[in-house]
Amino acid sequence: MTTLIVELGDRSYPIYIDQGLLGNAELIRPFIAGQQVMVVSNETVAPLYLETLLQSLAGLQVTTHILPDGEEFKNLEVLGSIFDALLRVPCDRQTTMIALGGGVVGDISGFAAACYQRGIPFIQIPTTLLAQVDSSVGGKTAVNHPRGKNMIGAFYQPRCVIADISTLNTLDDRQLSAGLAEVIKYGLIRDLEFFNWLEKNIDRLCQRDPDALAEAIRWSCRSKAEIVAEDELEGGVRALLNLGHTFGHAIEAGMGYGNWLHGEAVATGMLMAADLSHRSGWISRLDVTRIAELLIRAGLPVTPPAELDVERYLKLMMVDKKVHNGHIRLVLLKDIGRAFISDDYDHELLRETLASRSLF
Amino acid sequence: MTTLIVELGDRSYPIYIDQGLLGNAELIRPFIAGQQVMVVSNETVAPLYLETLLQSLAGLQVTTHILPDGEEFKNLEVLGSIFDALLRVPCDRQTTMIALGGGVVGDISGFAAACYQRGIPFIQIPTTLLAQVDSSVGGKTAVNHPRGKNMIGAFYQPRCVIADISTLNTLDDRQLSAGLAEVIKYGLIRDLEFFNWLEKNIDRLCQRDPDALAEAIRWSCRSKAEIVAEDELEGGVRALLNLGHTFGHAIEAGMGYGNWLHGEAVATGMLMAADLSHRSGWISRLDVTRIAELLIRAGLPVTPPAELDVERYLKLMMVDKKVHNGHIRLVLLKDIGRAFISDDYDHELLRETLASRSLF
Repeated sequence: MTTLIVELGDRSYPIYIDQGLLGNAELIRPFIAGQQVMVVSNETVAPLYLETLLQSLAGLQVTTHILPDGEEFKNLEVLGSIFDALLRVPCDRQTTMIALGGGVVGDISGFAAACYQRGIPFIQIPTTLLAQVDSSVGGKTAVNHPRGKNMIGAFYQPRCVIADISTLNTLDDRQLSAGLAEVIKYGLIRDLEFFNWLEKNIDRLCQRDPDALAEAIRWSCRSKAEIVAEDELEGGVRALLNLGHTFGHAIEAGMGYGNWLHGEAVATGMLMAADLSHRSGWISRLDVTRIAELLIRAGLPVTPPAELDVERYLKLMMVDKKVHNGHIRLVLLKDIGRAFISDDYDHELLRETLASRSLF
Repeated sequence: MTTLIVELGDRSYPIYIDQGLLGNAELIRPFIAGQQVMVVSNETVAPLYLETLLQSLAGLQVTTHILPDGEEFKNLEVLGSIFDALLRVPCDRQTTMIALGGGVVGDISGFAAACYQRGIPFIQIPTTLLAQVDSSVGGKTAVNHPRGKNMIGAFYQPRCVIADISTLNTLDDRQLSAGLAEVIKYGLIRDLEFFNWLEKNIDRLCQRDPDALAEAIRWSCRSKAEIVAEDELEGGVRALLNLGHTFGHAIEAGMGYGNWLHGEAVATGMLMAADLSHRSGWISRLDVTRIAELLIRAGLPVTPPAELDVERYLKLMMVDKKVHNGHIRLVLLKDIGRAFISDDYDHELLRETLASRSLF
């Protein structure tokens, strides 16, 4: 088992990465605060893994709450259903909330844990690649608003993250690819060596080679843990993790939540960021092509949706947490493996990127 | 002008107390973060004070959002309407949220500020006595759930609290009395000298003598600031501020939010706590009568509602943040001016208190 620590002083916590962790009661139990537990999962994940987890929680007073599956349910109304479930018991302030699922389950139940009685203990058990390498680590929780992605949320750290790699066996190909988008992101923003490794091993990852997956998850989580420890509240370097996300969030909201998977939108968004970086003279056309090829091999979309025109993009992008006094801050690339936050890109070049339907 | 500081390290902030502060642009402006401001008020307060505040904000991009008036609107749905208003603009992450109103406006817009884009700057401008002496200070924000008061919320500190005493001139008598309940609370929990002062000055306070009000507000805010600085997240001493609140919250939820004002429910709740403290042998019958008399002179109700029987009380009280592993923790009195948190009161005596319709 690999154990990584997210160093946040008295809110530090471990990330455990291995096969078969869901059934490891000895690992999980010390993180349960009181006698009450609320497990939130979804209709896809629960039939596969809930029973194993419940066996690890035997003897505790456990309530389960099953959400519908999909980004379109990460909203205030479904959040309210979690509060209803907590109060129906009623769960007290020592209740431990466990998120068993992907990014949507983790984000919404983490936010519920942050708000219920002003905060209860929280455990992340991510069951998708995307959640294991990115969303379960670092304490960002949120729900979407029809006008903008992740607009309502909190920074709220879990007590631990338990990444059971066995759960990836049941992930469908599209979800696996979506997770690879966030894996590739770490290479692009800060780690050329990892990007090179990904180019060599992307086929093994797509074939779910367990060793390759474990290596990619460890590498990604180490990156994420380092960045979060340095900048928990995204005052600086953490913003680099948003490479492709301002474009991607516009695609997700503009196309209707759930139609593009988050990772798919981020993949196309990263290529849009690469395209703008090239138009700005920072990276070569060859670099853009190299990025596009890796994304394509990972099974990811690289063509922006034809349904969104430049004005619609700009309007959607204005509703983003990176907007600062009316100006859209973007994460762009100086190089593969070297991202930076830019305030002063040429607005005309951004319009060209947004208008372009073929990016490489 | 009196300035008190809530000492919370890099989140420390001032409380300003004086007449005519709403129109003091020089005081307010330095606390505005960016160019955008969202003022949340209610239909009662806005016609009286919004224009004066807006003059102090001239030149900024100000949006206003007016809520209906009453505790029954402090819920997730109305919270959603604040997010809608923020995103309609759209407001960015540097937007300063200003709460102009009483406890409901402060609690719900403070929670909205805590969650919008995971947190935006927030200013409290309390216009009721209750908000000025209690709810605007200390960073507790929340909305109610049908099953329990303040069940969904966050600890989120404002950048400053501006208590303009002139706004109390328009407060109706019932609201003034409700505020006095929280003032009396400070005397009961930790300050016999203040309790004695209140017994001497309660008539002046009810007559809105400005000097007496200013003195009571200063005394209360100083208490609150000290307690919050010592225990921001209510791990210990801060819980004493909940004297009467577990009983009171049960009355508020049980009778339907908005029927009993929060301060009224707290007043009766404090007398119930005094009654149980007497039954437990800690304070004398004379002490209970003395407390009842001060509450009555302040215009507050001291008789528990006949509609709630013992079982209903217990069920409502089980949904409270002070419940710990199924046991209701109560704030009780060792003496007037000396409250403590009790786990081991006699449950039968609690039932006697809950069954009693005449407490003194």
